[in-house]
Amino acid sequence: MMKGEEMKEIKIGMLGFGTVGTGVVRVLRENEREITAKAGVKLTLKSVLVRDAKKERPYMEGLHLTENVDEILNDEEIDIVIELLGGIHPAREYMLVAMEKGKNVVTANKDVVAQFGKDMFEAMEKYGVDFHFEASVGGGIPIVMPLKQCLTANRVTEIMGIINGTTNYMLSQMAENGSDYDSVLKEAQAKGYAEANPAADVEGLDAARKIAILASIAFNTRIRFEDVSVEGITKVTPEDIEYAKALGYVVKLLAIGRDCGEAGVDVRVHPVFLPKAHPLASVNDVYNAIFVRGNAIGEAMFYGRGAGSLPTASAVVADVIDIARDMQLDTFGRLHCTCYAHKSLCPVEETKASYYVRLLVDDEPGVLAAIATAFGNHKVSLKSVIQTRRYKERAEIVAVTHVVKHRKMQEAAADLEKLAVVSEIRSIIRVENPQEDGAC
Amino acid sequence: MMKGEEMKEIKIGMLGFGTVGTGVVRVLRENEREITAKAGVKLTLKSVLVRDAKKERPYMEGLHLTENVDEILNDEEIDIVIELLGGIHPAREYMLVAMEKGKNVVTANKDVVAQFGKDMFEAMEKYGVDFHFEASVGGGIPIVMPLKQCLTANRVTEIMGIINGTTNYMLSQMAENGSDYDSVLKEAQAKGYAEANPAADVEGLDAARKIAILASIAFNTRIRFEDVSVEGITKVTPEDIEYAKALGYVVKLLAIGRDCGEAGVDVRVHPVFLPKAHPLASVNDVYNAIFVRGNAIGEAMFYGRGAGSLPTASAVVADVIDIARDMQLDTFGRLHCTCYAHKSLCPVEETKASYYVRLLVDDEPGVLAAIATAFGNHKVSLKSVIQTRRYKERAEIVAVTHVVKHRKMQEAAADLEKLAVVSEIRSIIRVENPQEDGAC
Repeated sequence: MMKGEEMKEIKIGMLGFGTVGTGVVRVLRENEREITAKAGVKLTLKSVLVRDAKKERPYMEGLHLTENVDEILNDEEIDIVIELLGGIHPAREYMLVAMEKGKNVVTANKDVVAQFGKDMFEAMEKYGVDFHFEASVGGGIPIVMPLKQCLTANRVTEIMGIINGTTNYMLSQMAENGSDYDSVLKEAQAKGYAEANPAADVEGLDAARKIAILASIAFNTRIRFEDVSVEGITKVTPEDIEYAKALGYVVKLLAIGRDCGEAGVDVRVHPVFLPKAHPLASVNDVYNAIFVRGNAIGEAMFYGRGAGSLPTASAVVADVIDIARDMQLDTFGRLHCTCYAHKSLCPVEETKASYYVRLLVDDEPGVLAAIATAFGNHKVSLKSVIQTRRYKERAEIVAVTHVVKHRKMQEAAADLEKLAVVSEIRSIIRVENPQEDGAC
Repeated sequence: MMKGEEMKEIKIGMLGFGTVGTGVVRVLRENEREITAKAGVKLTLKSVLVRDAKKERPYMEGLHLTENVDEILNDEEIDIVIELLGGIHPAREYMLVAMEKGKNVVTANKDVVAQFGKDMFEAMEKYGVDFHFEASVGGGIPIVMPLKQCLTANRVTEIMGIINGTTNYMLSQMAENGSDYDSVLKEAQAKGYAEANPAADVEGLDAARKIAILASIAFNTRIRFEDVSVEGITKVTPEDIEYAKALGYVVKLLAIGRDCGEAGVDVRVHPVFLPKAHPLASVNDVYNAIFVRGNAIGEAMFYGRGAGSLPTASAVVADVIDIARDMQLDTFGRLHCTCYAHKSLCPVEETKASYYVRLLVDDEPGVLAAIATAFGNHKVSLKSVIQTRRYKERAEIVAVTHVVKHRKMQEAAADLEKLAVVSEIRSIIRVENPQEDGAC
């Protein structure tokens, strides 16, 4: 485009034509009138990179499919490239080349943003283009843009989310039906909510990538995937969920980012006991939500569908429209990286929480005292201890601690394991008590 | 500012120094470092219009207070005017003059936006400035910007909100404690949640102004305050709330906007029975939330504090930062009015809902048949009828209808009132059943 020339049409290239790509085509087509009015210009999908251009696909009619990425990257008519390949390679390289060639980039790729965000932002500045990635976190939920543009007056101290639909569906089902982990996993796979290899979801890696992105924006620093301490839901049992209920909690896989000032930034993913009254506690099934605490806004939450063809396309196309507006105003880099603060990380050992601990112990006098002593030796004070089920000569004990450092809890657990009266530590799950904990 | 010159500082004038104004001063001061980094320029509050410049106020030190608005409107150094006077006059006139003089305007004024939005947007276009009003709806909750920028790929079919904190607090208290309307109103007044003259809140007028603004943006048309059909919460009784609970609902004052296509746009405020599982149902006390349904995103919700000094200031200052970015990029009107569609209104008589009807009737045989006939004569079919309490010779009957047009329900109610066996129609409240109703 020549500067100053009135734009009539902006041409788009898309890399990948899977679930989200199909959604993008549908949204561009079905909402064409609204989109043209809002973008102020016609948006045309010119070429789509696919692995097999001969394969029949829904919504392919009228589209130019190509197996050659250079047809998109070298096409001077294409001003916006939508990257939907997923994974690091070759998505990262293609996006860098696209920006080098002066094309704006929109991506849904959490892997690249969480691990190579720095390169992307540098390329964006260097080549004077936009790089938008709303769809990389929370599917359709607007969260990247609100953080970058609507919460700018705040010092954000906490960002906390249910940002993996698969595990939230599984935990919701476990809570509703009392099913165990293996059977809900099979059910989730059958429904297409979980993949054949579910590791990325159930081990918390997907959520970790997303919280790395969110925490970077919220705290104006750079958090990478490898900076996030991660624990998945594979060890959560129906018994834990039952105890949670009885104690007034629900079990959720939370991604948590906290700016603890001098103690550093604390970013982690793990299951938690969340009080039933917390706004995130009623986010069920495949829904996602992101909860933000800022020193002006107080508490805010953004809720919606965290995945799926059309919801994710909603975010991708909104980014495209935003760039189209920028192009017509001849601006770019409006939402540039604001990682101006170089904050240190709070090592997970130094993070604080209250803990739920479930133990299988000998059913005999003095056991409670022995356990309380083991906790006490590491200055882990107990809020409550309940002896519950009994099995022959064994009993189950559930303890909830006050807020302690993770290191102290680990030391206490190591000592508990050594006790002759303790047969097994069955679960250790963090308890979120916002009132008590404060932000850090 | 000269074009091209590098900006070092942007000067702001503020009209009004009440609750929100004090919040703005605090946020600008306490988060100065973050705000400067995000705005890319220093933001300085140069002058503040007050009624009495000699009065002692918190956070006034170092500020230039003036009783003369021209000191702000005629000050060429001031590029952004924050309007926090509230009410139509003289806020509207001051904002128009500010824009005429080339100043960008940020306002929290729902009255002006809901009634004179058109004039404001025209002035903005004419004088080449920005006009931002995030704080006019939902306090700190980002909703105007997300609608204008993040949900642009959607055809929005429904926007529904709890957008009045006073009434939500009152209804939450009634549900929690079984208190009646008058006593919760007194309590809300004592806590400062309700004003001495509570009409604007309890009659639904405040919510009506806000939904007019939201529906205009969501449906790309122009809805004014006077287009909204309004009913407040003054007639809601503890008995209604109890019946709601028993039937699986909560009572909320909802502001509802629906784009019903050829039937027109349906915009109204009234109490509703909302299913407990609806995301809005767990929004309690002074919290607000806005629920949006779009044809790509599906369901989304935005939750937070709908009022208060700092939360509202969070939205005001974010708007100021946004304008500061625009000024440095030498752009404006990026989020211009997108009221390109001229949609007709759906008259309230033609809107559809399911209804809860509570009647006091004679306790004698044949009464149910008489009532069912009165409904049936107007093609209002009943989903359930329960005879509940008995008083001497009277009984209370609760009926829930299937979805019918409001007109039919009104006709049936008029007939019911004429029946000799009906002593009183105690309540008629709409029931929201999204599954059944569809969007319209």
